[in-house]
Amino acid sequence: MDAAEFRALWDGLSPIGRSKRGYERYSWTDADQQCRNWFRTQADKRGMEVETGRSGNIFAWWGSLSDGDAVLTGSHFDSVPHGGAFDGPLGIVSAFLAIDVLRRTGAKPRRPIGIVAFTEEEGGRFGVPCVGSRLMTGALDPDVARNLTDRDGITLAEAMEASAADPSILGVDRDRLANLGAFVELHIEQGRALDAEDAPVGVASAIWPHGRWRFTFTGEANHAGTTVMADRHDPMLTAAFMVLAARKEARIVGGIATVGRLDAEPGAANVIPGTVRAWLDARAPDEAVLGQIVDGIESKVVDRAERDRTRVAIEAESETPLVEFDAGLRDRIAELLGGVPILPTGAGHDAAVLAQHVPTAMLFVRNRTGVSHAPGEKADYEDCAAGADALAAVLRELAC
Amino acid sequence: MDAAEFRALWDGLSPIGRSKRGYERYSWTDADQQCRNWFRTQADKRGMEVETGRSGNIFAWWGSLSDGDAVLTGSHFDSVPHGGAFDGPLGIVSAFLAIDVLRRTGAKPRRPIGIVAFTEEEGGRFGVPCVGSRLMTGALDPDVARNLTDRDGITLAEAMEASAADPSILGVDRDRLANLGAFVELHIEQGRALDAEDAPVGVASAIWPHGRWRFTFTGEANHAGTTVMADRHDPMLTAAFMVLAARKEARIVGGIATVGRLDAEPGAANVIPGTVRAWLDARAPDEAVLGQIVDGIESKVVDRAERDRTRVAIEAESETPLVEFDAGLRDRIAELLGGVPILPTGAGHDAAVLAQHVPTAMLFVRNRTGVSHAPGEKADYEDCAAGADALAAVLRELAC
Repeated sequence: MDAAEFRALWDGLSPIGRSKRGYERYSWTDADQQCRNWFRTQADKRGMEVETGRSGNIFAWWGSLSDGDAVLTGSHFDSVPHGGAFDGPLGIVSAFLAIDVLRRTGAKPRRPIGIVAFTEEEGGRFGVPCVGSRLMTGALDPDVARNLTDRDGITLAEAMEASAADPSILGVDRDRLANLGAFVELHIEQGRALDAEDAPVGVASAIWPHGRWRFTFTGEANHAGTTVMADRHDPMLTAAFMVLAARKEARIVGGIATVGRLDAEPGAANVIPGTVRAWLDARAPDEAVLGQIVDGIESKVVDRAERDRTRVAIEAESETPLVEFDAGLRDRIAELLGGVPILPTGAGHDAAVLAQHVPTAMLFVRNRTGVSHAPGEKADYEDCAAGADALAAVLRELAC
Repeated sequence: MDAAEFRALWDGLSPIGRSKRGYERYSWTDADQQCRNWFRTQADKRGMEVETGRSGNIFAWWGSLSDGDAVLTGSHFDSVPHGGAFDGPLGIVSAFLAIDVLRRTGAKPRRPIGIVAFTEEEGGRFGVPCVGSRLMTGALDPDVARNLTDRDGITLAEAMEASAADPSILGVDRDRLANLGAFVELHIEQGRALDAEDAPVGVASAIWPHGRWRFTFTGEANHAGTTVMADRHDPMLTAAFMVLAARKEARIVGGIATVGRLDAEPGAANVIPGTVRAWLDARAPDEAVLGQIVDGIESKVVDRAERDRTRVAIEAESETPLVEFDAGLRDRIAELLGGVPILPTGAGHDAAVLAQHVPTAMLFVRNRTGVSHAPGEKADYEDCAAGADALAAVLRELAC
């Protein structure tokens, strides 16, 4: 397909949730409803049946899931705060376009083909990533999910109700899982490896093990203007030390570590904070290295807390082991596409969750700048068209 | 007076704006209105005339301001976020009690005596301290004041309108200033100096020069999971370095420095921030030392930003020079009270603003723990009663 065909569909979706500061497409909001309506419209145009799964994910089917051994593709609509246009939606738009490619070449699937939009992949609203896929596969307890809160204290259950959805149905979706034979997620690349290899499309080998840890630093709130330095128990100092220690530990062993969120309480310029919370996101090529990073930060921070006369508590909010995608599927796809690059990634995806249950593969589309999770995230439309063609070829190979 | 008399009045005010996490008494809110109503009730009971100044401050008069050479006392109702009960309100409650003491001893003022509650002293809602006193004295431009915004983007003008107050009247209050002969503010001590000297009450000598600087660190927002460490422009690193540098520079020269507020954008755990803002509060015994602290931090942070490939911009939000209270008034009061301690403070007060225009003094009431701007802030009720008696003695000396 050409770039114009890609844009004709893309341009109808991309204004939803866009602001001057990037995308703010959060689950169970108006923007989410508009995305779901767009999904329904596209499915209707193609005569595909739409259904909402127990986990709030939305599906469109060519053929019937109940025939079993289905091939599922898709991604998610939701964005991180001030995110980009492509992370997530590219996989859904490409899926509908791949169906169009198959149909105009007269393909007749022998296996049902489904398109999915998973909910709350980024954790941008409720803080926990891959809520939809983890609920579907039973990796997330529905009671825990219902009680997740956003920054305004609204629970996931309340947010679903406000969107006329029923939170009581949340739970593992065993029948659906049992009827899936494969999952393929197309996604914009979030680094520059394909650019370096001069390739518009690649195939994923693995997802680095990664996790999120909440550090809670506790000291003693006091007046910033009258408390002499020697009398302080200032947790902001320990938190600042942690930010710098995280970078150092990750660099030493070749992993990555980020503190993107830090909240001080009470958070006033003229008050020494009583509590500071900071979130560590760390990733590494293997689990031993990831453990080295987190342990290294912890031991240094515990020492520093003693000097600052503060306390530190560390809680793992999520930990995802190394995910190696199905090797047979990966090699079959790479060969089918003419020997495209095979590359690992540090980013988590619903595909990593599905891979625990179903043979799963990921296709990446080139990102020339590597920028992602930011308004500047961008793929060339020619590359997006090439991605949709590649996905069509994969679906034909697997399902037709 | 005894502690019971103090508590009888105190206990009527102290529930307003109190929560489990400390006080949240912000200007132009419901809690503020309740405090103003309490003030009006107390003035009515004592037959004092109430008026609201051009700057939103509220006054009660025994005698008529227009007679000139008035003696004003009072403080403020508003708190920092999650603040204590005493910082501010103690000065207002003590003022009404001092009037009671004078009256029951048959005092007849030859100068008018006024009680004031200044608005937005802490800057807890609109970010700028001493808004009421600085408007009254012309130190804050009324257009700048009207456009100050709180965290929800509500302007001071909008907040006043929502409280049925007219923001168009804001401005310097020259007539009122011209009729003042002295200002005396009673305040809880915010350190432990009086405790060390075993004295329930003291007199202020000076307020350390102090200021607030906003540091804006700019880098490049990107995906926390896929951007290798070497490709990053992460402003959180530079901000963390600044927090630690501030402490170091202040300790070296014997000043104090605090970073109590730090905001990352977009502020998600899985996104390298594009921008981080951090607020430096710094204070020192004299202006040269304060300058050394701020310059020292700036030069170290600028170097570090180069290493982090980020940018830093520093803006002074407020700078207050050394305030030395009227020496004659200070010594007269200290002697009148039987040689109580004379001590400096690092905290800003409306008294520091008034001192530029009117002979001004401050009384401090002992704070055994030194905790302030926090829920644990506390003065013994016996000491509070001693403070009200001391204020009565001062008003008698100056006005009767």
